[in-house]
Amino acid sequence: MTARFAMPRPSRQNDGHMSTDSDAFGRQSLLVHEQLGGKIATRLKMPLRTREDLSIAYTPGVAEPCRAIAEDPEKVWSLTIKRNTVAVVTDGSAVLGLGNIGPYAALPVMEGKAMLFREFAGIDAWPICVDTQDVDEIVETVRRIAPAFGGVNLEDISAPRCFAVEDALQDLGIPVFHDDQHGTAVVLLAALLNACRVLGRDMADLRLVINGAGAAGTAIAKLLHSGAQTQSGGGVAVHDVILCDTQGAIHRERPDLTSVKRELAAFTNRENRSGTVQEVLADCDVFIGVSKADLLTTDDLRRMAPNPIILALANPVPEIMPDLARAAGAAIVGTGRSDFPNQVNNVLAFPGIFRGALDARAPCVSAEMKLAAAEALAAAVTDLGPEHILPDPLDRSVAPRVAEAVRAAART
Amino acid sequence: MTARFAMPRPSRQNDGHMSTDSDAFGRQSLLVHEQLGGKIATRLKMPLRTREDLSIAYTPGVAEPCRAIAEDPEKVWSLTIKRNTVAVVTDGSAVLGLGNIGPYAALPVMEGKAMLFREFAGIDAWPICVDTQDVDEIVETVRRIAPAFGGVNLEDISAPRCFAVEDALQDLGIPVFHDDQHGTAVVLLAALLNACRVLGRDMADLRLVINGAGAAGTAIAKLLHSGAQTQSGGGVAVHDVILCDTQGAIHRERPDLTSVKRELAAFTNRENRSGTVQEVLADCDVFIGVSKADLLTTDDLRRMAPNPIILALANPVPEIMPDLARAAGAAIVGTGRSDFPNQVNNVLAFPGIFRGALDARAPCVSAEMKLAAAEALAAAVTDLGPEHILPDPLDRSVAPRVAEAVRAAART
Repeated sequence: MTARFAMPRPSRQNDGHMSTDSDAFGRQSLLVHEQLGGKIATRLKMPLRTREDLSIAYTPGVAEPCRAIAEDPEKVWSLTIKRNTVAVVTDGSAVLGLGNIGPYAALPVMEGKAMLFREFAGIDAWPICVDTQDVDEIVETVRRIAPAFGGVNLEDISAPRCFAVEDALQDLGIPVFHDDQHGTAVVLLAALLNACRVLGRDMADLRLVINGAGAAGTAIAKLLHSGAQTQSGGGVAVHDVILCDTQGAIHRERPDLTSVKRELAAFTNRENRSGTVQEVLADCDVFIGVSKADLLTTDDLRRMAPNPIILALANPVPEIMPDLARAAGAAIVGTGRSDFPNQVNNVLAFPGIFRGALDARAPCVSAEMKLAAAEALAAAVTDLGPEHILPDPLDRSVAPRVAEAVRAAART
Repeated sequence: MTARFAMPRPSRQNDGHMSTDSDAFGRQSLLVHEQLGGKIATRLKMPLRTREDLSIAYTPGVAEPCRAIAEDPEKVWSLTIKRNTVAVVTDGSAVLGLGNIGPYAALPVMEGKAMLFREFAGIDAWPICVDTQDVDEIVETVRRIAPAFGGVNLEDISAPRCFAVEDALQDLGIPVFHDDQHGTAVVLLAALLNACRVLGRDMADLRLVINGAGAAGTAIAKLLHSGAQTQSGGGVAVHDVILCDTQGAIHRERPDLTSVKRELAAFTNRENRSGTVQEVLADCDVFIGVSKADLLTTDDLRRMAPNPIILALANPVPEIMPDLARAAGAAIVGTGRSDFPNQVNNVLAFPGIFRGALDARAPCVSAEMKLAAAEALAAAVTDLGPEHILPDPLDRSVAPRVAEAVRAAART
């Protein structure tokens, strides 16, 4: 059962910034959270009305499925919630734009994520907010609670710790997927695929700059690279990618690189260029921003190659506002915001990815599965055009299509 | 939404043993578990249909409740699922009568427990099956995942590890309650209170033997002791309790006692008697069995004081069958089984105890709260009589009454 609340509609303003809407939604959100006291609940999948119900769901009958699993551990997948259950795990170290607010304050976001899992993929997700920010302890905790879960969605864990946590858990036997990395990367790749379709371009020819070498930027670079590496991903190969952090382009001679960034430098920035993001952006075809508000000017865009593709995902304030980008010649503009066209929203990816991975009982989410998800997501757009390179985030037909592609990719 | 299944009714037999019914329920249970693929699911407490819904439940609105909790951590109790959420934690080391079948095979039981929490107390419980049987690691894991939970129900953890795990977590700030200990103890105490009412006896005069010094037996002895210790519990004082394990009566000179049993010996067995359970049972008024099937004969009961009270909870086969016990003079007989009168079933206690503890935001379940629960449970019986010393386990009015008493006791 769901409840409806009488709420004032937020005043919509088109001054280019989200603050007014955000504030209005924030006030309403606080009210709703107070009224509900939590946004998710449990429900029974069979009734518990009679003694017989009790004897079947609980004692003495339940001993039989227990015994069956004890004899054949694989049966935990057919007889229990494991097949459909995802742990939404956070340490609260990188929550939304709020930063390191810890596991308690992160809980409303994890509840929201669990809602999206249920609503878009019929997956039962439960928040696990861990009271440690030590990589080894997070890894150990996830390992220890894994038996009752079919997958793990890592959420809002800060870089570079998120990479270490995810890497260490890849042998767990169930998919462990950091959505801030790969969910974003999959949706961005779908956007890029469709932008190329709209503009009649070949991805292999694109020169691309990513600003932000945190969770999302790193995952995008890696996904584009894996597209060039894998056989099935031939169509999504981008060979010329430059990744920038706060110190500018990441190149192989930079002395300040972390091990993660050294790894990135090995397969990005073919010409090993140095300079600020604005400098290396000159003559490039695509800008992907996943970091800093108000980063670019119209002049910066005018120095790019003609008709550039701008995916400016800093939220709530993008790297450049869509109207300015278009005025400066951008052929296609996407942001992270719902009040502009081409919203890059992770909800387009993670529900279908987990649905497909769970249904295939995949032990991980492979590069092939992510590429298949991106392609399916791109193909789900019916009214393709400069302002429609992605489906509507509320389109219920997307997750099943993504799931089907992921399931197929998992089985190959 | 719940599903109904067409199932053959199990053949009910009254041969005194449960095997036939158990087998029938077991076969049905296996079928139902296969059909359902898990017995619990999540549901949304508000809709996610529109962009506005998304903006309130998730980004950007959700930032506001996050910020509120970051500023005032107490608000996690009013703005999130924490207020109503219990982790059902097991290591699978002592599951039903099946023993140490591990965390995977234990999952169907934990799902059943989560169902009972939802059905009888409106509590959202989620199974956490930990992949370790090391006490320190279990404790550490529960500590780390505590932020999103308002309480912890420890389940099916073997003795004496269960004592150490529970003790170590009492400073967690949320109730940590091992149901196999205290749930059983509370229902047994309620049964004893009502048995005394029916028979016009004073609990203070009873001589009582408990067979089984594991989780349940230990908790019963402690609860009876705390009844004698606390002011409010004056009415439930039993001064003369002898606890037996497989080596017979636990007394202060026994050289083989563990630390837990030495602690028990300090406040039980006033006369420091030794001997087998059958020997020390002579002339006693009450037998409580929580361990061994077919332990007692009619002759053993005839050597007890007149009109004894027999609570024979070994399951599925009790220490002595009710018809034999009555034939041997027992005034009141209770078992753990649903097909005999006076079923001692934990579902009568734990849903109300957690409901009350959560509503009071109690940091633990104190002895006073357990005693209050037992008294409320005893008072919930309307048709008191030798075959009605406990409410029906399916009586939906019980948990709210227990909850109210527990909430009141938590606040005193």
